[in-house]
Amino acid sequence: MPNSPTGLYLEDLQEGQSFTSDSLEVDAQQIVEFASSFDPQPFHTDAVAAEGTFFGGLAASGWHTAALTMRLLVGHGAPFAVGLIGAGAQIEWPRPTRPGDVLHARTEVLKITPSRSRPDRGMVLLRTDTLNQRGEIVQVLTSTAVVTRRPQASAG
Amino acid sequence: MPNSPTGLYLEDLQEGQSFTSDSLEVDAQQIVEFASSFDPQPFHTDAVAAEGTFFGGLAASGWHTAALTMRLLVGHGAPFAVGLIGAGAQIEWPRPTRPGDVLHARTEVLKITPSRSRPDRGMVLLRTDTLNQRGEIVQVLTSTAVVTRRPQASAG
Repeated sequence: MPNSPTGLYLEDLQEGQSFTSDSLEVDAQQIVEFASSFDPQPFHTDAVAAEGTFFGGLAASGWHTAALTMRLLVGHGAPFAVGLIGAGAQIEWPRPTRPGDVLHARTEVLKITPSRSRPDRGMVLLRTDTLNQRGEIVQVLTSTAVVTRRPQASAG
Repeated sequence: MPNSPTGLYLEDLQEGQSFTSDSLEVDAQQIVEFASSFDPQPFHTDAVAAEGTFFGGLAASGWHTAALTMRLLVGHGAPFAVGLIGAGAQIEWPRPTRPGDVLHARTEVLKITPSRSRPDRGMVLLRTDTLNQRGEIVQVLTSTAVVTRRPQASAG
């Protein structure tokens, strides 16, 4: 259904447009599980050991915050028709995600660059802020997504 | 044990130094599980549906590749004494990770900047290439890590 209202194509986007995602809560168990698989350092896996570290308490791996943000974007945060395919990104973590945090993502379209070689698509520069329940930014993601144009109806 | 041979401090690092991680294999089930939690798009969760997409077959979420790379770095890929704490990063995925890929990471120290305000630490700019079993780069991560100096023995 190419005109599905939930799916945005390149021509539906404009610079300055923004999207707000749903929200999700992350608990200590999820933080420890993710870190045990991917980032097994004491400040991410052990609430007691974490007290004496740089973080002063259990903190989610930055890559967990990144993965949760992607989950928010794929939900309703960046509703592109063909999905969200990133070519690259810049990521900053001004502060960690903590147990009990409720996160949401706010995405702004910074720049749209139609492809010269592939007229059916363009590159869209996005800035996604991930915020906790106090409105504090836990992650700033600047990413470039490939977004296609709406498929043309065949001329017959 | 501040002199542990597995733990590197700021003064043990030099620009141009490089580290190679262990390797790990990623299978289709892991790709689908990660994506189901964090990046539920058909090209990451459904091998059949993935055939007709941009990726032409099941591909790991870029965030899964990033998380696996962190796992490699925390293993033996970047053996800093106090752990690997990133302040930010730039990430590119020249090609996707595929089921059955065996990944390893190669990290080079690009630049060391001692902190002016905190003499016990410095910022270390690292480039980490994640490679598959054919030596193809699946991710280039340029990150800035906080690395501390070796604690001084007390003079007294």
